[in-house]
Amino acid sequence: MDIREKIIKSDRLYDGHIIKLEIASVTLPDGRPATREIVRHPGGVGVVALDDENNVYLVKQYRTPYDEVLLEIPAGKLDKGEAPLKAAIRELSEETGLCADEIKYVGDFYPSVGFCDEILRMFIATGLKQGDTHPDDDEFVNTVKMPFSQVVELVLNGTIKDGKTIAAILKTKLLLNL
Amino acid sequence: MDIREKIIKSDRLYDGHIIKLEIASVTLPDGRPATREIVRHPGGVGVVALDDENNVYLVKQYRTPYDEVLLEIPAGKLDKGEAPLKAAIRELSEETGLCADEIKYVGDFYPSVGFCDEILRMFIATGLKQGDTHPDDDEFVNTVKMPFSQVVELVLNGTIKDGKTIAAILKTKLLLNL
Repeated sequence: MDIREKIIKSDRLYDGHIIKLEIASVTLPDGRPATREIVRHPGGVGVVALDDENNVYLVKQYRTPYDEVLLEIPAGKLDKGEAPLKAAIRELSEETGLCADEIKYVGDFYPSVGFCDEILRMFIATGLKQGDTHPDDDEFVNTVKMPFSQVVELVLNGTIKDGKTIAAILKTKLLLNL
Repeated sequence: MDIREKIIKSDRLYDGHIIKLEIASVTLPDGRPATREIVRHPGGVGVVALDDENNVYLVKQYRTPYDEVLLEIPAGKLDKGEAPLKAAIRELSEETGLCADEIKYVGDFYPSVGFCDEILRMFIATGLKQGDTHPDDDEFVNTVKMPFSQVVELVLNGTIKDGKTIAAILKTKLLLNL
């Protein structure tokens, strides 16, 4: 069965600082019309920063939508036209002050496929050296260093709930046999 | 350092079929004002359906935001007031026709913490019995049965990009030692 929809048009309802909202008119596989709410997002990166003693650098960040402080891997949005690798180096530096000898791309993460087009690229950074943190002007984060095995435990017991962090930490564990 | 923001008010800009868009006025930890774009979402469930021979049931579904067919675990939004476990049983049945002897909750997945308040509850379903599929009226899915080890490989090599599927499959592998 062909399960693809055909997008006829997409109307922009809101053009915001970070996201844009569109209503798409589509034709369903059976020929009937339907509408879809779509949030357009610039995309981003997330970085598992692993030092030579198998510690991971995480950030504690307040997240307004949940009114909750979350434990996450360093991450952020792409600047306009910015390459993902460059964004990964920048976000790692901004949020943790770390530089890395090697940053390896380990796949894409689509956060919420039903309504949003965000693509987050996941990286593993190794060979870390400490510098200074310099977060965005309106970003307040606390950096935490933790043994990798402890972070895996926090993922498996449900304490870590951030999706990109769950995916990137467990992918790292299995790819690097940690 | 206190990193929490204080939410002063949140104005509803769009009240849609699935999502709602709000602009929140907040006070930053240093006392300055800022605004945040927030997408409100009803929340949902995702189910790793594992049979007695360690096969997993996945669905292929066209996703309008990406204009792409994705391979995902069965999942869906909560109906108004619906308990997550009930939604998990319903979505599993709707998308794959399966009933399960046991459905175990294995933690929350926050898809995109910067702008959206969606919470997706993850479940593992075992003791599966086949019935009939009956997807939503505007939902067209193909069900695929695959060895669990092959699905893990598709996650690790980057073929599977859906975030909830990456998280739930790898969590299942490590929790059940598969």
